[in-house]
Amino acid sequence: MPLTRSLEDRLRTALPTLPPAAFTLTGLDGVRASGVRAGIKVSGKPDVALLVFDEPAATAAVFTQNLFAAAPVVVCREHLEKSGGRVRAVVVNSGNANACTGEEGLANARIMAADVAAWVGCPVEQVLVGSTGVIGVPLPMEKVRAGIATAYAELSRDAEAGRAFLTAIMTTDAFAKEASERVGDGVHAVTVAGVCKGAGMIQPNMATMLAFVATDAALTSGELSAAMSGIAAASFNAVHVDTHPSTNDTFVVFSVTNASKNAKSREASPSQKESAIAAIAAVSRRLAWLIARDGEGATKVTTIHVRGALTDASARAVADRIAGSALVRTALFGNDPNWGRFVSQVGNTRDVKSVDGLRCTLQGITVYENGGPTAFDRAKASEAMKREDVELVIELREGSGEASLMTSDLGYKYVEVNAEYTT
Amino acid sequence: MPLTRSLEDRLRTALPTLPPAAFTLTGLDGVRASGVRAGIKVSGKPDVALLVFDEPAATAAVFTQNLFAAAPVVVCREHLEKSGGRVRAVVVNSGNANACTGEEGLANARIMAADVAAWVGCPVEQVLVGSTGVIGVPLPMEKVRAGIATAYAELSRDAEAGRAFLTAIMTTDAFAKEASERVGDGVHAVTVAGVCKGAGMIQPNMATMLAFVATDAALTSGELSAAMSGIAAASFNAVHVDTHPSTNDTFVVFSVTNASKNAKSREASPSQKESAIAAIAAVSRRLAWLIARDGEGATKVTTIHVRGALTDASARAVADRIAGSALVRTALFGNDPNWGRFVSQVGNTRDVKSVDGLRCTLQGITVYENGGPTAFDRAKASEAMKREDVELVIELREGSGEASLMTSDLGYKYVEVNAEYTT
Repeated sequence: MPLTRSLEDRLRTALPTLPPAAFTLTGLDGVRASGVRAGIKVSGKPDVALLVFDEPAATAAVFTQNLFAAAPVVVCREHLEKSGGRVRAVVVNSGNANACTGEEGLANARIMAADVAAWVGCPVEQVLVGSTGVIGVPLPMEKVRAGIATAYAELSRDAEAGRAFLTAIMTTDAFAKEASERVGDGVHAVTVAGVCKGAGMIQPNMATMLAFVATDAALTSGELSAAMSGIAAASFNAVHVDTHPSTNDTFVVFSVTNASKNAKSREASPSQKESAIAAIAAVSRRLAWLIARDGEGATKVTTIHVRGALTDASARAVADRIAGSALVRTALFGNDPNWGRFVSQVGNTRDVKSVDGLRCTLQGITVYENGGPTAFDRAKASEAMKREDVELVIELREGSGEASLMTSDLGYKYVEVNAEYTT
Repeated sequence: MPLTRSLEDRLRTALPTLPPAAFTLTGLDGVRASGVRAGIKVSGKPDVALLVFDEPAATAAVFTQNLFAAAPVVVCREHLEKSGGRVRAVVVNSGNANACTGEEGLANARIMAADVAAWVGCPVEQVLVGSTGVIGVPLPMEKVRAGIATAYAELSRDAEAGRAFLTAIMTTDAFAKEASERVGDGVHAVTVAGVCKGAGMIQPNMATMLAFVATDAALTSGELSAAMSGIAAASFNAVHVDTHPSTNDTFVVFSVTNASKNAKSREASPSQKESAIAAIAAVSRRLAWLIARDGEGATKVTTIHVRGALTDASARAVADRIAGSALVRTALFGNDPNWGRFVSQVGNTRDVKSVDGLRCTLQGITVYENGGPTAFDRAKASEAMKREDVELVIELREGSGEASLMTSDLGYKYVEVNAEYTT
């Protein structure tokens, strides 16, 4: 089910306005979860998380593009291929990324999946594995396996168990990240819940983005897969904190229909399917915003909208250059309406042919047009930037290409978090 | 005179080891300079600089690639075209970049050139113009023109006048940047002197890199032009502070032979020409290093050498990704041998096919190879990073492509300098 152009436009232009989550993954029928302390983290915080569906869920996923793909990513790709996108369980450990760990790491990821398959009683290829934490260190497998056994024993359908799952996948996150949405009524109702962890790349080495989103709408893994690139483009791939895709980045979407017991979920109408995908995208976008908001000392999230570029790719290149600039990000931190830093990055982007028609608008205030700065009120513009959510619009008037990106700002805390010696 | 491959290699692998400058531009025969206070800068510091050659110098230049090219850049391009690369004088004002100033700005840059041409008594196209400072504000032309008159009156051949020129082109530079080199003896001697200003992009808006390098070796503007891209690639284009090429960036090289009075300079042998170009490149590289060293609160310059990539372009892409990463730059600031941040950026670069052969060496200590971190001594590696000059080597073993980049680190001072509200 590829996104329609109008749906794509809705996703792209939508701000992440979802309210705080009303429920978590266990809010869906047929979902059990748990999170336990296995002693992988030195801090003693929860570090093994388990998610089990009563019946196999249709699943689609996207993973890191980094050539250093971690062992759990390799195993997930294999399993989704073998199972045809049907998943019964997800096991995650935090505190150790099982990345840059060679053959031993791969064997350990397989053991994690096999253990869960044995407890749950399902084919091993119906188990996904995630890991997040330090890289280059072998997993402490005794602890991990004992943790899986405990996590299985503690599986529950209540909201607390869902929260325990989320807590156990977190590493340096400053706050828990979850979102939910319910649209329609009765048999037409569609429910979506999602959780994620991630706050840019943090010490000691590389951190990871893990996101799990589930809907009770009946979608096939093919339908989910077809929508996945559009959803990812409008959410996690539109976050620009560090330009450091990690070794473990994982984004999975499940259709948990629990079909044999749940009559309403056995079939979804085309409009229900579209609603479900829009809701998945909205939840994902909200989760992505939360990651940007938690970006290593960030004080705000700036959404950069680029419009009127020659192509969408060119618009994205402009947004990337602006979001990737430490100078822009420090200006955002300082509530500095520094139009020169924003517009100069447009002139530095290869696919831009002309900056003659350029207009730059910050929080609704036009700060640059007709080849120069406007006579805007700097103090007022600065005041308008003192928000958790800032919007920067760049209009090129060269074509109809568009893109949006969310970026965190860069302040003293960023340096503090990232410059500290790791040992 | 294009660079030979062996000369290119010498440039590319050389570290900026030149000692402090022994002499400045006025150390060359036939060069007069001055720098005066015209009141353009609010601080009252020197802000109009003039350089005059007794006879037209063969000249080559490279300018910003930013689509927002400032008025003086437009005028320089025109004049070099018209004059066939022959220059009698260079006038620079600091405190105002004359950028994003429209038609009025262009007219003002032309007036500056015309004034100098009138004082010196040369065709207007033999005058180059440079401006650096705030953008989007019209030049205060009365002050500028009075400053030019004073600067002309104060022209002198002594070292102090050369220093005055350098001081008057500076903006937020924390220190003066100059380099010199003398190779060979007697009639075979070649002398090169250079000055520059620049410290990344600084508030209030955009700062600029201006560099002027002169040699007494007889080279034609064609010979200089042919060598220019190689010299720039090994020097100013190998600095990565902010990825913000500014509106005004200008790098000019002069052959100041003073030929009618100076017998030894009337002709240069091929080997002298090659020596001269190598010396120009060494001086330029040293100047570029000084810019990186002054990069907005920088505590060190890290030279990133990438070797064994599929192509030179791919090596450059890897170096760019590493140098452009705020996470890498904060790790450098914190003396943190954080191999994960360095190598993960290699895995994120498009043209890299495999990271299997990757080796990463920091200050001569191998920190990553054979698919994982080595058992290196972190404390020792951190200690080794506490230097003004740090070297990071990435070997890919995929081909023979190479690149080197110099980058500054990113610490608290960077945030302080860049986040402060501009008004």
